[in-house]
Amino acid sequence: MSYRLGIDLGGMSVKTGIVGDGYSILSFSQDPVSMGLDSVVRSIKTSVRNALGKAGLKASDIEFCGLGAPGFFNPVSGNLVFSANLGLREVPLSRILSKEIMIPVKAGNDANCAVIGETLNGGARGRKDVVMITIGTGIGGGILLNRQLFTGGNGMGGEVGHTPLISGGEKCSCGIRGCFEAYASATALIRQTEKAIAEHPESLMCKWKEEHGRVSGRTSFECARIGDETALKVVDCFEEYVAAGLGGLITLFKPEICLIGGGISAQGEFLLNPIREKIGKYIFACSETGAPEIQAAVLGNDAGIIGAAFLDSMS
Amino acid sequence: MSYRLGIDLGGMSVKTGIVGDGYSILSFSQDPVSMGLDSVVRSIKTSVRNALGKAGLKASDIEFCGLGAPGFFNPVSGNLVFSANLGLREVPLSRILSKEIMIPVKAGNDANCAVIGETLNGGARGRKDVVMITIGTGIGGGILLNRQLFTGGNGMGGEVGHTPLISGGEKCSCGIRGCFEAYASATALIRQTEKAIAEHPESLMCKWKEEHGRVSGRTSFECARIGDETALKVVDCFEEYVAAGLGGLITLFKPEICLIGGGISAQGEFLLNPIREKIGKYIFACSETGAPEIQAAVLGNDAGIIGAAFLDSMS
Repeated sequence: MSYRLGIDLGGMSVKTGIVGDGYSILSFSQDPVSMGLDSVVRSIKTSVRNALGKAGLKASDIEFCGLGAPGFFNPVSGNLVFSANLGLREVPLSRILSKEIMIPVKAGNDANCAVIGETLNGGARGRKDVVMITIGTGIGGGILLNRQLFTGGNGMGGEVGHTPLISGGEKCSCGIRGCFEAYASATALIRQTEKAIAEHPESLMCKWKEEHGRVSGRTSFECARIGDETALKVVDCFEEYVAAGLGGLITLFKPEICLIGGGISAQGEFLLNPIREKIGKYIFACSETGAPEIQAAVLGNDAGIIGAAFLDSMS
Repeated sequence: MSYRLGIDLGGMSVKTGIVGDGYSILSFSQDPVSMGLDSVVRSIKTSVRNALGKAGLKASDIEFCGLGAPGFFNPVSGNLVFSANLGLREVPLSRILSKEIMIPVKAGNDANCAVIGETLNGGARGRKDVVMITIGTGIGGGILLNRQLFTGGNGMGGEVGHTPLISGGEKCSCGIRGCFEAYASATALIRQTEKAIAEHPESLMCKWKEEHGRVSGRTSFECARIGDETALKVVDCFEEYVAAGLGGLITLFKPEICLIGGGISAQGEFLLNPIREKIGKYIFACSETGAPEIQAAVLGNDAGIIGAAFLDSMS
C-alpha cells in the first residue's frame, strides 16, 4: 500500500485525508480554520496530525502531499499569490507547510484539485479533456486538456466564474459586472429566488421560505419538483444561465465531458437534463464540432482531497 | 536561403506567398476564389503557381507548405470539418491540395496562422503567451500558450468570437444571441453607428454617411477624432465591449500580450489607449494576477501568409 496526503483548505475548514491504493480515503480529519497565515498553518498541522494518527501512519510513510486552496498560486515560485477567502497575499504557503509538517507539499488551486479527483476516480474517470464547474457560493472551474491542468499563460488563468455572461449586468463579488458567477452560482440562484418570491407571493416558494426561515439554493428546485409555476420559471432561467456560460467554455475548450459539482449537483437529472437540452444552442457550430457529455460530479468533498493527493499526476 | 509557402485562403480570395529567411515575403499572388471545393482547389493551384513563378522557384524548392482557412480542422484526420465562408464540409483539403500542387500541405485555422505570424515577426515577436483577436466582419481568435497553438480538447476550440458577452442580447451571425462578435466586430460597430445616426441626425456621422454613401467601420472613429459627441459615445461604447470581451479571455488565458488585428487596428493608439485604460476592470483579480500588454497587430495580410508558412513551428 502506498499513502498520499490530500489537504483541501477552505475558508471555513481544512479537510485532510490519507489516500491509499484505488483512491480509497483511509482516514479523514476536518478541522476549523480562520483567516490569516498563523491560523491557517496551525489548522493544517492539526488536521494532518489527526489524519496521520487515525491511520496509524507517520510523516515518512507519505509518498506525496498536495494541498488545494481557494486562490492563485504562482507556478514558478509556488507562492500563494492571493486568497480572498483566507485573507492571504504573497505567502510561500507550501514552503512553510513543508517545514511544519515535515513532508514536501505541492500546492494548487482547489477547483483544479477537484477536477483531478473527479477525473481519476469520479464522474470523469478515464477522460482526457474535462471542464468542471463547481456551483457554490461562487463558480469554481477546473479544466484538464490531455490530462494536464489548464492554467493559462502565467498559471493563474482558467477562472471561469469571472468571464462575462451578461457584461454590464449584475454586480459580481469580484467587482466586475455580469460575470458567469453573478448569474449561475448558488448565491445568484438565491437572489433570483428572492426576487421571484417578492413578485409572486402566491408561489409555493413563499411558504418554503416561511417554513425554513430563509431561502436557499434548494428552495426553487424543491418547489419546482412539486410543480410550482414560479419556481419552474426560476429554475428554467437559472439552467439557461448555466447552459449559456458552459456553452461559451465548451466553444473555447472543447472538452469531451463537462462536470457540474457543488451542492446544486445533488439535483441530479432534474438539473442536468434541461442543461443537456439547452446546451446545443450555446455552443458555436455545435452540429459540426460536437457537444460534450454533461454529468454531475460524484465525489463531493472527496474530490478535493483525492485531487490534492494526486496533484503531481496532472500538473 | 530556404523557402516556405504560405497560403491564406479567404472567402473572397486566396493569397499565397513564398517566405524566405527572416520571414521576408519573396513573392506574392492574390487570386479570386469562389465557394465550393473545385473552385477553391483551382484557385489555390493558380495562386501557388503564380507565387512560385514570380520567385523563379519550383515545387521541389519548397521546404514546407502551410494553409490557413476560415473553418475548423480535425487535428487527427487533417480534414476541413466545416467552413461556412467556403461552403465546404468534411473535405480532406490538405490531402487533395498536396496531390494537386505536389507539395505536402499542412492546414489550419486562419486566425491561428495570424497569431503565429505576428509572434514570429510582428507585434508579439518573441512572446510566449499571446491572445490575438482579429476584428473584422466577425471576431477571429488565435491563442498561443508557451508558443504552442491552443485549440482546445478536440482541436476545434478557441473560437473566442462566439463566447458570451451579453448572453441573450444581439443576434450573432452564428445563431447564438449575445456573442462577443455580435458586439465588438466591425459589423457590430457599423450597426451601432447606424443606430446612433438614426437617433442623432445632428451628428457629424450623418454627413460622413452622406458623403461616403454608406457607413463603415471607420465612420465613428473618424468623426470621433474630430470631436463629434455622438461619435465619441459610439466609439467609447464599442471600446467598452472590446475591453469586456478581451478581459474575459485574459481571465481565462492569462497571456503576456494581447494583439488586436483587423481593419480597425489601423486606428492605433486612438483605439488601444482607451482599451488599455478600461481593461483592468474586466480582468478578474487584476491587481494580483496582472494585466497583459495590449498592442496592435502589425503585419496585416502578411501575418496569415507567414503564419501558414510556419504552421509547423507552433502546432
